[in-house]
Amino acid sequence: MFKETPMIALPITDKDLENTLNNAKLNYIDIIELRIDQFENKELNHIKEVANKVKSYDFYTIATVRSKLEGGSDMPDSERLKIFNAVIDFVDIIDIEYTSTNIKEKVKEIAKNKGKLLLMSCHDFEKTPSEDEIQKLIDDCKAQGADIVKYAFKANSFEDVARVMCITNKNKDKNIVAISMGEIGKITRVAGFVFGSLITYTYIGQSFAPGQIEVKKLNELIEFFKGG
Amino acid sequence: MFKETPMIALPITDKDLENTLNNAKLNYIDIIELRIDQFENKELNHIKEVANKVKSYDFYTIATVRSKLEGGSDMPDSERLKIFNAVIDFVDIIDIEYTSTNIKEKVKEIAKNKGKLLLMSCHDFEKTPSEDEIQKLIDDCKAQGADIVKYAFKANSFEDVARVMCITNKNKDKNIVAISMGEIGKITRVAGFVFGSLITYTYIGQSFAPGQIEVKKLNELIEFFKGG
Repeated sequence: MFKETPMIALPITDKDLENTLNNAKLNYIDIIELRIDQFENKELNHIKEVANKVKSYDFYTIATVRSKLEGGSDMPDSERLKIFNAVIDFVDIIDIEYTSTNIKEKVKEIAKNKGKLLLMSCHDFEKTPSEDEIQKLIDDCKAQGADIVKYAFKANSFEDVARVMCITNKNKDKNIVAISMGEIGKITRVAGFVFGSLITYTYIGQSFAPGQIEVKKLNELIEFFKGG
Repeated sequence: MFKETPMIALPITDKDLENTLNNAKLNYIDIIELRIDQFENKELNHIKEVANKVKSYDFYTIATVRSKLEGGSDMPDSERLKIFNAVIDFVDIIDIEYTSTNIKEKVKEIAKNKGKLLLMSCHDFEKTPSEDEIQKLIDDCKAQGADIVKYAFKANSFEDVARVMCITNKNKDKNIVAISMGEIGKITRVAGFVFGSLITYTYIGQSFAPGQIEVKKLNELIEFFKGG
């Protein structure tokens, strides 16, 4: 499913759904990320309906139930598992946190049994790990069955940004999504794909993460830099 | 003289000088590159007057007499030496090509005797060398007395761009100026500084190199990406 320029992903909730999906289509969004942990209504039937609606618009879909530890909401693991089971038929990719040690093996099975992709995600909202630590994260995630490895680290210096981009480039045969969060990491939202990052996350209206670039501006920048 | 964000250099000729320098000031240019090989009038007194004029505007100045082999004009080495000798008191940096083997030792002496910086430049208008080849160029230039090593290579893929940025990052303690030329290398004109590239070249009106970004747009992009 991946192409030379980055795929653009839009995280959404269940709020103002139809309008959001129409806007996403108009703005060349490739992937919808269902941030189910942020849904107002977390009943399984409602979640399924939303996922089915998104599918009907012909987007690729990521199901994310972000744990509190990594920037999401406080939900028991058992409920998160139920949600993954409920939406698996409607989505293409399941996002599970590297630190969700109690359920990640089960989530992997849910994805693999249905032939869906497993994205393993790693967050640090304070700092960027060392090169060795990032390499270990990548290797661990791959060893644990991740089809895609996503890491988003807060950048506190341009050196942090460069380190994340260059370790990504070294591992670009492994399906990586790399983000330096924060204002000085913004360049990774646009230039990440040059170093092999597959997906860039954007927003329409309300941003979910520090340093994200609004979709119109992001499209304009990628268009400008992709050349020819 | 270097700062965390990139210094912006404007290559100029002797055409429409006053107007160009005023424009450069208005657009936050840090460095004027005198492309003396492109001057209409190549008399030494005239060249000195131009260099002196630029100095009076309080820009940093690079004296460049680009050889034909590396994209400049056809001038005998003896004439190039005379020009460097004539302008040395008015400029901060002398740019000499890595391939100008007959005169680069002499040009180094001219610079060092006056306490000026020697920038050694490497161009490939067709392709981007391998990582090992770029490392060898950097090491050679440093061994030959370069204070600053500049390389500008045509990028034919995003892989070329990533390679140039990451080798630059590895060598960022060595005063590097790194450019991927061409449309798909444009990102290096903006993001190069994240990987340690010290200078980015721009234009007002007429561009000297493929992929350069016009100064207003360049300033706007650097401002956007440098963050808070």
